[in-house]
Amino acid sequence: MNPIVKTMMQSTAIAAAGLLWAGVAAAEGSASIGSAIYNQQDELLLPEGFREWVFIGAPLTPHGLNNGKAGFPEYHHVYVNPDAFAVYQRTGEFPEGTVIAKELVLLQKGDYKDGSKNAPSGRGFFAGEFQGMDVMVKDNARFKATNGWGFFNFGHNAPPYLKASRAESAESCASCHTANAGKGMVFKSYYPVLR
Amino acid sequence: MNPIVKTMMQSTAIAAAGLLWAGVAAAEGSASIGSAIYNQQDELLLPEGFREWVFIGAPLTPHGLNNGKAGFPEYHHVYVNPDAFAVYQRTGEFPEGTVIAKELVLLQKGDYKDGSKNAPSGRGFFAGEFQGMDVMVKDNARFKATNGWGFFNFGHNAPPYLKASRAESAESCASCHTANAGKGMVFKSYYPVLR
Repeated sequence: MNPIVKTMMQSTAIAAAGLLWAGVAAAEGSASIGSAIYNQQDELLLPEGFREWVFIGAPLTPHGLNNGKAGFPEYHHVYVNPDAFAVYQRTGEFPEGTVIAKELVLLQKGDYKDGSKNAPSGRGFFAGEFQGMDVMVKDNARFKATNGWGFFNFGHNAPPYLKASRAESAESCASCHTANAGKGMVFKSYYPVLR
Repeated sequence: MNPIVKTMMQSTAIAAAGLLWAGVAAAEGSASIGSAIYNQQDELLLPEGFREWVFIGAPLTPHGLNNGKAGFPEYHHVYVNPDAFAVYQRTGEFPEGTVIAKELVLLQKGDYKDGSKNAPSGRGFFAGEFQGMDVMVKDNARFKATNGWGFFNFGHNAPPYLKASRAESAESCASCHTANAGKGMVFKSYYPVLR
């Protein structure tokens, strides 16, 4: 086993064991993969250290190109927990316990209507301040109704993000993923390392 | 010490020791940080596993917004080796042996002149195929003439990237970094986690 992955798995286990309340991420036998930890209110805890997970892509749909009505006008910085990514690379499937974190990052103030600005490297788009945080978690038993993935919103109005978040209803996030990404629920075609 | 960092440092040391030729990354006492390994021809080896390093940002300067003359019209997926990033977080300075990798990733074929396309999430920019790879390495002794950073081009015409690359002249990359990023040489203002 990759020693980094092994250490991360050990770290995850240690962190989980240290929690006062019972971590139920282990319930489906996915403790070794999961970065998903829930509290007694069945809320997902904000994942720690996600900015050091495996980056998979940064889609960008600025307000300026969407009549001011973009669903997510910020940079999407999207990460997968490393141990789940390692499994995905071997198998092409996201294992139980996969956590995909999407941090929303404001664009730097633009010089043009489309939101772009001038920089030494040319006119373009550049990340400004952290703005929001969404997470999706693979857990077939827990989220059976939404094709095995749960969706969580940790706030879209700048840090600090919520420390814990309840799963969104099937209508809010999952419906768009189901309609447009299929039952796999992940928009793989937009992430080069997943294709 | 963070066990993940410690393991990565150990892994780096083991990898370096396994090379048939003498890794000279250790020469400046930076073996524990460095992901920079050189061959006998003084060429930097293509860093391994950089896509799993710490992602810092994805600037984007499309051709469509630069009269077809963008210096780097692709997504820049920029990563720092994790052990160097850990030091940066503690000290605010990049240590000897820091490696910053910039992978250039083509935009998916656009529907509009600016290079953007329509997607379920709106009109915007999405990463297509991997296209190129540039690296900068912090080594004050080796790259004294360019403010302590060496610049390397591993190819801009799609993978496979070069396996090894000689440092660019001061005029090619370093001059723009010096002129626009200052003596620190890193465009920190464009990367939220570095600010």
